[in-house]
Amino acid sequence: MDIEVICTGDEVLTGKIVNSNFSYITQKLEDYGFGVRRGITVGDDRAELLDAFRKAGERNDVVIVNGGLGPTVDDLSQEIAAEAAGVGLVLEEAWVERMEAFFRRLGRTMPPNNRKQAMLPAGAELIDNPIGTACGFGVKIGRATFYFTPGVPRELRRMLEEQLLPRMLEKSGRRDVILLRRFHSYGLGESHVDAMLGDVEAMVPDGSVKLGFRAHYPQLETKLTVRASSMEEAESKLKPVIAEVEKRMGNFILARDNETLEGVIQAAMLERGATLATVEDYTGGQLAARLAAVEGMDGYFSRGIVVPTLQAKHDAFELRGVELEPIPSYEMVEAMAQEVRALAGTTHGLAVLVGVTDAGGRRGTLEATICIAIADENGVVARRSRNNGNHDWVRLGAVEMGLDSVRRHLQGLPLKEQTDFERKDG
Amino acid sequence: MDIEVICTGDEVLTGKIVNSNFSYITQKLEDYGFGVRRGITVGDDRAELLDAFRKAGERNDVVIVNGGLGPTVDDLSQEIAAEAAGVGLVLEEAWVERMEAFFRRLGRTMPPNNRKQAMLPAGAELIDNPIGTACGFGVKIGRATFYFTPGVPRELRRMLEEQLLPRMLEKSGRRDVILLRRFHSYGLGESHVDAMLGDVEAMVPDGSVKLGFRAHYPQLETKLTVRASSMEEAESKLKPVIAEVEKRMGNFILARDNETLEGVIQAAMLERGATLATVEDYTGGQLAARLAAVEGMDGYFSRGIVVPTLQAKHDAFELRGVELEPIPSYEMVEAMAQEVRALAGTTHGLAVLVGVTDAGGRRGTLEATICIAIADENGVVARRSRNNGNHDWVRLGAVEMGLDSVRRHLQGLPLKEQTDFERKDG
Repeated sequence: MDIEVICTGDEVLTGKIVNSNFSYITQKLEDYGFGVRRGITVGDDRAELLDAFRKAGERNDVVIVNGGLGPTVDDLSQEIAAEAAGVGLVLEEAWVERMEAFFRRLGRTMPPNNRKQAMLPAGAELIDNPIGTACGFGVKIGRATFYFTPGVPRELRRMLEEQLLPRMLEKSGRRDVILLRRFHSYGLGESHVDAMLGDVEAMVPDGSVKLGFRAHYPQLETKLTVRASSMEEAESKLKPVIAEVEKRMGNFILARDNETLEGVIQAAMLERGATLATVEDYTGGQLAARLAAVEGMDGYFSRGIVVPTLQAKHDAFELRGVELEPIPSYEMVEAMAQEVRALAGTTHGLAVLVGVTDAGGRRGTLEATICIAIADENGVVARRSRNNGNHDWVRLGAVEMGLDSVRRHLQGLPLKEQTDFERKDG
Repeated sequence: MDIEVICTGDEVLTGKIVNSNFSYITQKLEDYGFGVRRGITVGDDRAELLDAFRKAGERNDVVIVNGGLGPTVDDLSQEIAAEAAGVGLVLEEAWVERMEAFFRRLGRTMPPNNRKQAMLPAGAELIDNPIGTACGFGVKIGRATFYFTPGVPRELRRMLEEQLLPRMLEKSGRRDVILLRRFHSYGLGESHVDAMLGDVEAMVPDGSVKLGFRAHYPQLETKLTVRASSMEEAESKLKPVIAEVEKRMGNFILARDNETLEGVIQAAMLERGATLATVEDYTGGQLAARLAAVEGMDGYFSRGIVVPTLQAKHDAFELRGVELEPIPSYEMVEAMAQEVRALAGTTHGLAVLVGVTDAGGRRGTLEATICIAIADENGVVARRSRNNGNHDWVRLGAVEMGLDSVRRHLQGLPLKEQTDFERKDG
């Protein structure tokens, strides 16, 4: 099936906004086994839109158009779709009623220009948008079925998943279902995991299992998809593959599917009635902010302290007999984890300290020593790592390693396993 | 001049990475007065690339191609460019020597497959890449001049600014220069500033001044560009317009051009030898992290404290006689700003407290009360604001308002001026 994606709007074309809708759409289609041939970006321009619609209609089976469904005069998608399809626009009374009800719930009257959003090409199929005023629609242009979708990301997502993918699966004649399972890890690079798992697709000989990756440093997302004729069959096909992936990636898997590392930590802390205090320096509050961004964090996260300098550490902590150094020692990080726990009266204390020296590279490369310690009622455990990179790279890595160490500690796993991002002599 | 941008690579087409290069390119071209007609995204696919190059060569004067210049077999740009241009590939000895020197400096020998990066279409113009092994090149395909650029963002940026824009300005026959000035603000929405400044373009009657915006909540970037025959003329044309923009936007301008809010704060603090400690709750460390991300922050930023709950505030602060409440009061935020200053022994203390209640909306909308206080040797000043929005919106807004209050305080401006993001009854 030949598929093209057309994104519209001056804001996207002129770079006022980064087009994350495009990557969302193509990635989701990939997950469901649909490859996209090409992406097109055009502005709010009649001639360019018409040309793009007509050409895409000649060379594809399905075209997904994003944006241009709003109530203002520069939203042209319905009008140009009708022109390209060689039909007129007709008012969808059913959608006008939906919009009027929508505004009534907000205690407002629908502005007259919203009627424009219910003007669809004659013969088009209305596609529901349960959370906005821009309805989608499907219409034939050339040999392709065009699906028009709203530019608001959450409206697009819901329409694609609930409305378009089922239609496309049916259109493709595929009676199969697709099951997607995701594994989030920290510490292994994409090529490493690729080499480690390269042969798991072959565990299911009919070729229905695909392995894929999405790297967003410091985390790597490993994806397994399988096609089958039913969800039960998909699950039974994937079961041994999942077991193998879990076995090989082992302790590096920090979360699955929609879970996040900070969510996994929160659930484990709440489950045991534990509480946490943190102290950090170079990461400047990013560690605390990751934990604090999860709803319900106030059930366990009690205090975060940021002490960037040695003087600030001296002022905030007693650290009797421990020497404070720019490159943190085990002794220093362990003492700070224990003292932040005592200060805040929590069950757990986490210290993440980073010392950097200029590595003399041309790109602001730093040699960083990351020290992590976790104190609880049983004492204190620590790990140290040497990572090179620029400021942002070191910060992101230190936050991730700190959080992942908490996850490992709570799950009874060893704090330290050599990652691909640190020096072997660390 | 008709211009198209073609982005290549499976990673971009399948959404593994979000294509920020595209928005960077088109925005930069806009700044220099070049409109882009269309953007195309294609994967590492010979037939699609060839078709895209040929079609773009028919309908444009200039085409910028991004990506596909690497040393691996799936990097196809040079090869397909030669095919589309109807010429062969020839080895650019000069670039081989540059790459060999590049690897020597790293203490390594150039791998053989890097030679591929010096194979350019016959007759192509080599375009320098001073910071990478992927050279750019210019070549004629159809009626268009194609410029091929590397996918690594910082290499692309440098090549576009230093090499391509001067060539394009010359090609367009424009003898003029473009001057761009930017104003960063917090608190005014785009449509508000647009209405406020809509007539400033007309201050220069020849139409050479353009006003533009880029909104990235909570900040708004207002851009003024002017074309002139020399930089002196550009500056003198823009001078009265800049003065008018400064006058109308007034205290809301928090930084200019490449400055950042946190950088402006740091410079002002360092200049007066001041030091800062912060305390925050709902923002969870994001406030501290913004300040701490700037190099040299350890010269003034002494301590950050995160106390998400009332219990944590009780434990960390004495706050004699002040009642702690879920919706923060002036008394409470002022006491905490003063106490964090005393605790850390700094010249300035900043407290940003947020209380939220569920607004009962369908989208997780919260009613937030943001309280900000700044303590220094002269006492304490505070401001309060009511903002509605979801979690992320409230957090981002509270951090921005907290930092902007520090900027206002250091510049001797009133802490409180009504913003477009808060309720009038705040």
